[in-house]
Amino acid sequence: MTQAEVTVFFLALAVLLALARILGEMAVRLRQPSVLGEILAGILLGPTVLGALAPEWSAALFPEQGAFPVALEGVTSLAIALFLLVAGMEVDLSTVWRQGRAALTIGLMGMIVPFVLGFGAAWGDPDLLGAATGTPPFVFALFLATALSISALPVISKILMDLNLFRSDIGMIIIAAAIMNDLLGWIIFALVLSLMGGGATANGMGIGTTVVLLLAFTAFVLTAGRWILNRLLPWIQANTSWPAGVLGLALAGALFSAAFTEWIGVHAIFGAFLFGVAIGDSPHLRERTRATLERFIAFIFAPLFFATIGLRVDFAAHFDAGLVLLVLVLATAGKVLGCRLGARWSGLRPRETWAIGLGLNARGAMEIILGLLALEAGVIRERMFVALVIMALVTSMASGSAIQAILKPKRSVRFFDFLSARGFAGALSGPERHDAIAELSRCAAACCDATPESIFEAVWAREMVMSTSLNAGIAVPHARLPQLKTPVVTVGRSPAGIDFDAMDGQPTHIVFLILTPAEDYRSQLEILADVGRTFQAPAFVEKCVAAANYTEFLALVKSNE
Amino acid sequence: MTQAEVTVFFLALAVLLALARILGEMAVRLRQPSVLGEILAGILLGPTVLGALAPEWSAALFPEQGAFPVALEGVTSLAIALFLLVAGMEVDLSTVWRQGRAALTIGLMGMIVPFVLGFGAAWGDPDLLGAATGTPPFVFALFLATALSISALPVISKILMDLNLFRSDIGMIIIAAAIMNDLLGWIIFALVLSLMGGGATANGMGIGTTVVLLLAFTAFVLTAGRWILNRLLPWIQANTSWPAGVLGLALAGALFSAAFTEWIGVHAIFGAFLFGVAIGDSPHLRERTRATLERFIAFIFAPLFFATIGLRVDFAAHFDAGLVLLVLVLATAGKVLGCRLGARWSGLRPRETWAIGLGLNARGAMEIILGLLALEAGVIRERMFVALVIMALVTSMASGSAIQAILKPKRSVRFFDFLSARGFAGALSGPERHDAIAELSRCAAACCDATPESIFEAVWAREMVMSTSLNAGIAVPHARLPQLKTPVVTVGRSPAGIDFDAMDGQPTHIVFLILTPAEDYRSQLEILADVGRTFQAPAFVEKCVAAANYTEFLALVKSNE
Repeated sequence: MTQAEVTVFFLALAVLLALARILGEMAVRLRQPSVLGEILAGILLGPTVLGALAPEWSAALFPEQGAFPVALEGVTSLAIALFLLVAGMEVDLSTVWRQGRAALTIGLMGMIVPFVLGFGAAWGDPDLLGAATGTPPFVFALFLATALSISALPVISKILMDLNLFRSDIGMIIIAAAIMNDLLGWIIFALVLSLMGGGATANGMGIGTTVVLLLAFTAFVLTAGRWILNRLLPWIQANTSWPAGVLGLALAGALFSAAFTEWIGVHAIFGAFLFGVAIGDSPHLRERTRATLERFIAFIFAPLFFATIGLRVDFAAHFDAGLVLLVLVLATAGKVLGCRLGARWSGLRPRETWAIGLGLNARGAMEIILGLLALEAGVIRERMFVALVIMALVTSMASGSAIQAILKPKRSVRFFDFLSARGFAGALSGPERHDAIAELSRCAAACCDATPESIFEAVWAREMVMSTSLNAGIAVPHARLPQLKTPVVTVGRSPAGIDFDAMDGQPTHIVFLILTPAEDYRSQLEILADVGRTFQAPAFVEKCVAAANYTEFLALVKSNE
Repeated sequence: MTQAEVTVFFLALAVLLALARILGEMAVRLRQPSVLGEILAGILLGPTVLGALAPEWSAALFPEQGAFPVALEGVTSLAIALFLLVAGMEVDLSTVWRQGRAALTIGLMGMIVPFVLGFGAAWGDPDLLGAATGTPPFVFALFLATALSISALPVISKILMDLNLFRSDIGMIIIAAAIMNDLLGWIIFALVLSLMGGGATANGMGIGTTVVLLLAFTAFVLTAGRWILNRLLPWIQANTSWPAGVLGLALAGALFSAAFTEWIGVHAIFGAFLFGVAIGDSPHLRERTRATLERFIAFIFAPLFFATIGLRVDFAAHFDAGLVLLVLVLATAGKVLGCRLGARWSGLRPRETWAIGLGLNARGAMEIILGLLALEAGVIRERMFVALVIMALVTSMASGSAIQAILKPKRSVRFFDFLSARGFAGALSGPERHDAIAELSRCAAACCDATPESIFEAVWAREMVMSTSLNAGIAVPHARLPQLKTPVVTVGRSPAGIDFDAMDGQPTHIVFLILTPAEDYRSQLEILADVGRTFQAPAFVEKCVAAANYTEFLALVKSNE
């Protein structure tokens, strides 16, 4: 690469990453998966927006000639393979076994129905559905059938975790079905990929050889490979420097596996995914190793990859409203119908069958990656790719809202959800708890409809029953007020310490005034428990007392694990 | 990239990473920095060994045509920029200020003397020293002077940490001087780099403009940039999802900074390094964020990059023993002399001045990167590059041994340093502590010269004075024996629990029998303290009791933080 190319390379990566992270963060704010924002970043920087508004800027930042596109492809190929490694690590094979029959029935039906629907539609009218000219109808139909029937395990896991349903019975059924779906879907897709090459892969292997090698490799990695890794991991951790040895094993293994599947004519990412399933299944893989890999890859590499998707296609020019609607209806109808049937047969109640069907309807990264591979292999046209991406985004957005509407789960609340800069009183002046509560009551009155006097009276009455001091220099005076709609939390700090009549005789340094609606016992309990959990360690309380302002205080609390 | 190219891309990355990690691990075993093994991996896979033995394999694995070299360059460019980000994060500006005068004097003298020596030698006989034909003597002399005078901060930090000297007075002086050295060296080197371009950079900027922009940018990042980042970090942590927001900021910022310095005609890595210094200096950067970045980058990206160094040059063909010796002598003599002079003037004792001089003599990654850039810019010939790499490796290896020989620091010991598979007794049969100690005494006798009876007697006598039970189900019977040369530790476990007369009345599940030489009080205390520290948490003790064998037990202990 020349100096100019290196400059553009770093600049393009910086711009892609920065915008992807910013828009991803905005998506999270709107309670959507961050991948939505990351893809939008690419659409804004690519031909759809920047390329249309300022073509010369777009060409300067993402040149299509020279070393730049190849260097960028090197980085994004690595990024997506590693992302699939992490996605594979999330798959918990034992969950699939534990949920047994229900997961199997739902997972299979949730694949078969959309598969048949997609296959039929694509076979019936390939041109309407955006097949590229010259693609054999069978290959195209198989591709569309697969693309419509794969659920997005990472998106679904994320949604269930956000909604506090991950460990619930219904959550586990959804996850187990999604895992089943993922494994099967990828194997079928791997076959479709090798068929896309016209039945012979680049290295001259026949399709039959590819299929046999693929099935043998999958079986090997998930049985012998899993067994070997489970024995190798303790040895690596005992005999190499930690965590360098394990990280090296995970990455090198994923890359070898990726190279192998690419070589037999299936895409590299399938190998990385399989290896992820095998290594992620070992109880000897430490939480910290997992976290290091997941963080770096999911927060840096994945946004980079998803942002580059938008660079490849002009979403405006290839937007075909009819096709988008058709794909969306086919995908949703097939998936929801199939899953509901499976759930019905497994004896679940109607309300639950809807939650399962709509939950598993979430598509995400996978459809987009599959679509991209099909586009590159010349199986589909741009407008079909655009329709698939939009379908993936819309179903992901809809899934979370649908589960929420049907199951009405309680989100777990954190105390800072109800704290604002205005409710952060800063330093408390008085030496007595009476003064502290009065001061925080005035502060709380500015955040809600109650008067300072009424707040003080209610809180003081409670405080007189028994001191609200917790251990480690924390006190949580609180009350329930009839006029409140949502909880209000205010915080004051006293470096000198306030006598809150604590059990351990120590002075109190941080006071949380917690007001909750009269009928909402649950919020009160959760906020109290959350404060207690968060401020267990005296060293952490000290840091929070020393924080210069509201932002630093909030930063400390949010980055505390 | 075609399918064949993608296959080779993943395979090459996998082979490079795997071999680099394996040889890096072997280097650590020999108490050497892992970078030695990583570079050796590249030399084995590159033209020096594999290319000479099996040219067709070498060409198949690392093709020099097509998309492969560019894609690999994309990945390694990113890898080295991110490694410099992490290296910059290690720089602690306040340490430089605190050690004040001594660090300044030593840092400056440790640069000036080798700089003058290198400049003089290169100016006097550029051809002997491997200048490329057509390089202006002034540019070559400036390059060699800089290459000889830069210390390797990451290597030096690692050595001092390994030797348990990092926080000592002399350690802090060495580190502060190395930081000074690093900052100055990189600024001078940035100038050399722009001069290499013949006084005008690729974008047509004059050398004067480059110098002014470089100094202005450095000053900006280290003052205003630092200030802004210190304010931005709490805001990011308070208002974005954690740790995605901070990771994104660190990476995107480093990439922007890298693009800027590359654009003004200085290498991209300098920008990444500067940004690392600025963000690493903020007290608001959490330890966990730092660890996530350091681990992934230092254990995955850095080995990949250093392994590719050996791919570029044939070390055997370009090995020039005379030149290697000359460079080694010039580099060592100048650095040691300069540092000792500076240390003398700062009032340090002769023994300490030697430790400082030989400590700062460690070269490492930096010289190699600089040499590579000079090779690519056509300033030096291959034989000079080879000599520089060998000089960097030899001085790094010598530095640790030299400090050890001069200062004789005590390494901190861990209990498992004296535990072996033979000393791992497995399940203890008896229900009484008498049985447990007898069983472990027999086991210990197999690991040293003492008889089971003599061990039992000494340990039991100590046990009878007061129970050696610690909290959390751990007991540490111990004794000092005159016949021992080194400590011996044996471990037995009892799922059912043994009554060790514990203070908390709980049964003991893991028993450590600790034997130390009679005169070595220090080892005994350190091993006892280490066992106590390691096995504080009952949940962790439980896991260790459940470990299936010695390897799993050791893996748990080593990966516990």
